[in-house]
Amino acid sequence: MLQKSSNAVFSSSSESSSFFAFRPSHSLLPPPTPLSLRFFSMTADDDHPHHRKLHLRHSSTSSFKLLNPVLACGASPDSHQTSSSLRNDDGSPVHGLSESIVGVLGGGQLGRMLCQAASKMAIKVMVLDPSENCPASALAYDHMVGSFDDSATVQEFAKRCGVLTVEIEHVDVATLERLEQQGVDCEPRASTIRIIQDKYLQKVHFSQHAIPLPEFMEIDDLEGAKRAGDLFGYPLMIKSKRLAYDGRGNAVAKSEEELPSAVSALGGFGRGLYVEKWAPFVKELAVIVARGRDNSILCYPVVETIHKENICHIVKAPADVPWKIRKLANDVAYKAISSLEGAGVFAVELFLTKDGQILLNEVAPRPHNSGHHTIESCYTSQFEQHLRAVVGLPLGDPSMKTPAAIMYNLLGEDEGEPGFKMAHQLIARALEIPGATVHWYDKPEMRKQRKMGHITLVGPSMGVVEARLNSMLKEEVSENQNEVSPRVGIIMGSDSDLPVMKDAARILDMFGVSCEVRIVSAHRTPELMFSYASSARERGIQVIIAGAGGAAHLPGE
Amino acid sequence: MLQKSSNAVFSSSSESSSFFAFRPSHSLLPPPTPLSLRFFSMTADDDHPHHRKLHLRHSSTSSFKLLNPVLACGASPDSHQTSSSLRNDDGSPVHGLSESIVGVLGGGQLGRMLCQAASKMAIKVMVLDPSENCPASALAYDHMVGSFDDSATVQEFAKRCGVLTVEIEHVDVATLERLEQQGVDCEPRASTIRIIQDKYLQKVHFSQHAIPLPEFMEIDDLEGAKRAGDLFGYPLMIKSKRLAYDGRGNAVAKSEEELPSAVSALGGFGRGLYVEKWAPFVKELAVIVARGRDNSILCYPVVETIHKENICHIVKAPADVPWKIRKLANDVAYKAISSLEGAGVFAVELFLTKDGQILLNEVAPRPHNSGHHTIESCYTSQFEQHLRAVVGLPLGDPSMKTPAAIMYNLLGEDEGEPGFKMAHQLIARALEIPGATVHWYDKPEMRKQRKMGHITLVGPSMGVVEARLNSMLKEEVSENQNEVSPRVGIIMGSDSDLPVMKDAARILDMFGVSCEVRIVSAHRTPELMFSYASSARERGIQVIIAGAGGAAHLPGE
Repeated sequence: MLQKSSNAVFSSSSESSSFFAFRPSHSLLPPPTPLSLRFFSMTADDDHPHHRKLHLRHSSTSSFKLLNPVLACGASPDSHQTSSSLRNDDGSPVHGLSESIVGVLGGGQLGRMLCQAASKMAIKVMVLDPSENCPASALAYDHMVGSFDDSATVQEFAKRCGVLTVEIEHVDVATLERLEQQGVDCEPRASTIRIIQDKYLQKVHFSQHAIPLPEFMEIDDLEGAKRAGDLFGYPLMIKSKRLAYDGRGNAVAKSEEELPSAVSALGGFGRGLYVEKWAPFVKELAVIVARGRDNSILCYPVVETIHKENICHIVKAPADVPWKIRKLANDVAYKAISSLEGAGVFAVELFLTKDGQILLNEVAPRPHNSGHHTIESCYTSQFEQHLRAVVGLPLGDPSMKTPAAIMYNLLGEDEGEPGFKMAHQLIARALEIPGATVHWYDKPEMRKQRKMGHITLVGPSMGVVEARLNSMLKEEVSENQNEVSPRVGIIMGSDSDLPVMKDAARILDMFGVSCEVRIVSAHRTPELMFSYASSARERGIQVIIAGAGGAAHLPGE
Repeated sequence: MLQKSSNAVFSSSSESSSFFAFRPSHSLLPPPTPLSLRFFSMTADDDHPHHRKLHLRHSSTSSFKLLNPVLACGASPDSHQTSSSLRNDDGSPVHGLSESIVGVLGGGQLGRMLCQAASKMAIKVMVLDPSENCPASALAYDHMVGSFDDSATVQEFAKRCGVLTVEIEHVDVATLERLEQQGVDCEPRASTIRIIQDKYLQKVHFSQHAIPLPEFMEIDDLEGAKRAGDLFGYPLMIKSKRLAYDGRGNAVAKSEEELPSAVSALGGFGRGLYVEKWAPFVKELAVIVARGRDNSILCYPVVETIHKENICHIVKAPADVPWKIRKLANDVAYKAISSLEGAGVFAVELFLTKDGQILLNEVAPRPHNSGHHTIESCYTSQFEQHLRAVVGLPLGDPSMKTPAAIMYNLLGEDEGEPGFKMAHQLIARALEIPGATVHWYDKPEMRKQRKMGHITLVGPSMGVVEARLNSMLKEEVSENQNEVSPRVGIIMGSDSDLPVMKDAARILDMFGVSCEVRIVSAHRTPELMFSYASSARERGIQVIIAGAGGAAHLPGE
């Protein structure tokens, strides 16, 4: 079976791909009245993720809500509405935010961070995990030691919880389906877990919903693999359908000759394999999408993910891509999640191709490594958002409260104590960096490439945050770094000023004074100007030479 | 005994009270080289709290550090240096950030939030608290049920911890002193707790260190009280020396006749009383100050605290006071904490008087209600900072990562279930507000005026955050609010434009269109302009009429 995706509709080159294209047409609200005079372009606006709330739940705050720059969009209310009721089932008032006990299948670092978010809100989280000292264990309201892939255990666990959710998709989905039939509340729905946990089924599903994907096909034997190679060319990506994550379950065949070894590296055709056409992406992007129990959907800002040996290594938020690409990525992510059922946060991993297409890579039905930065950088973290969603509270604001963030994974660099030592050395440097927050998952064993913790750096601009990351990663800063980094900034409003201004750079160079030249326009790029000026001192700039035409009023000049 | 404080040196009206006045003179570093051309005034600079780091601990990052706008200041290293060593005492590498077990006397909401900060860093926190289900209990690594004011219990507790600290100052300080002599590490020092827990002793101490205070004197009998009344006038504030907090232990006598009843309300002279001259403050301010084990000191931004029936109700960060007042408040706070011993965070509560004086009210040797906003609004929260300080890690950046924050305490409005219901209603509204984070302390019993939780709102400007707070607190928003709030913003660069622009307002008024008029200068007040434009839509502004002279280039125009 060969699935071909239709990308045309989603391509950024197509002017017709409107932001509103995927909203259910029966309930379209008019877009908010734009400012009749756009005073200047706002960062907050550009970086604002999709806001697709539908119901203004409390009429008491509706006029406030309407004042927000929120793109309102409707969806039909379904059977599981926001249940932010004032009373428990027995009629007594709710103490705090919610008294629903959230059961989480899995107790790894995602479960741990869910427990941290839950503790602020005093929401009780129980975890089911086979490891007695799993990362979530110490923080959970309760930890049931057992397998989330064992039917009797999951059933027993479900009895103790008000709502069931996951921090890993490789769970016993048949049991979840049975529990749902018995009335147990699973968020997201078992149907969603079933689609996601089989990567091939996932691809078929999204393809049927017209989500742009790299082309793919199932392979059952070497003949089928060869046919796929003929069709898609080489290198060819071969993937396991199930139990694949962090690069496990992927193998690349560079030529037809490599097919048998790639297949056997994955455990043979019996494992269930499929192939994907090589996606020559220029960047990997990701979008965290949240859906409430009332079906309201909100998207977090698009981030760039940088992998190292197939494992997420660095996440940059927001992604440095044009507005059009961000919009397209949000649209694809929104459409993908709209096709799945249930509440919670979802991660949508995407490829950005050279020709400006966005292709879906895969979806996770849970909080995700690409959203860890949200703990420090967004108004509502992905973990708080997931809890709000599954217990039926209104979704929080997913937009960024800091202009830029970088998440750096602390991956095991060696086994055992040497690995711990290297991690501790990096942590010691991170603790000296302004705006850096260190997360340590408290895993008892250090293994190579294992996710042991992460560091999030936030700051006033991506330039500043990148400089801090570099400083953190450099074991030794060279003695003469101060002389290499620019001490004088030469800025001008337009490159038409360059012929005059370049002489300043030439003369500084004669005297051996390092400088940088930038086009920073107060009226065309006010945010850049603001960020340039705010970060100049930190970057070591001691003098700014600002060139401008006679009529210009530079702020602060 | 009568203590008179000398305020003159600290008064903002005295031009000689320099920022550097209190730095130990033997180690003054030159101030950082200023930008030779100040491009424009930066918010980040204005709001930047004191940065008084002394040791650039790792030479590898020193050149990076020097690039920061940090006011470096020295203090002689003492016996308990930063112990961010790579090895445990037994020679094995440290796993994570620190393996020191932090023992906290007290397990209330402050202990709970310490545990939350500790969980990110996987630092183990043990609490000692008499209440089995105290707020910190569920999150602590271990909870010893017992009194923090009982000698044998505290000694037993100390055996299990690497470092001892407090979340309440009313602990058995004699035992702490004995433990210190036995080599137990108490941060801050027992000497500090002893000074702070007796408010009269605290006043004497700060007075001896030339910290400006309201005048005060000890009273032993009614005659003494009358003499104090004659000297200080009425109303007269009478206070218990010990076990006083949240307004408990304070009584006001409006006249000499009221002295006996005020004294008996406090339990009589046997309790140990003193009087304070009434401080006619215009605002109450507070500064959280952190000191590392290496004696480095950092101040958080100055906040305004608003009390309701003597209990902290609302905190606004940063305080809306002139730069000079902020500097003065920081200076007083810095000097006060410099006079105390030990590591940790301290809260310095201050009065701002009508004539621009800053008077010290009192100090808490621990995280404090006035610093709760730091969890969402600062790069390093006061709780993470306290843990970094007491275990000997470098202090983190205390500056704000969001332009504005308001903390609103969820105080019990009624006893029992009706109180829970009212809190839940407010929480339900808060969950709908963008940028609001709800903290619930999970206290089993609701009592009137009890601190049950808090809500922090952060946003792009104080105006936006205040509007959101108002929206949260309003049960019902009036139907015609949209028409009362301005729909058109008329802005101009200078009031010289007003004669022309006021006609626009007049005509809008004729047509019944609400408007607001503001002076927003792109070159004199770029931050205001930015914040105005960013928040306009949210505030309901649909049209902006911008007036400017012919030569001006308005960004984005």
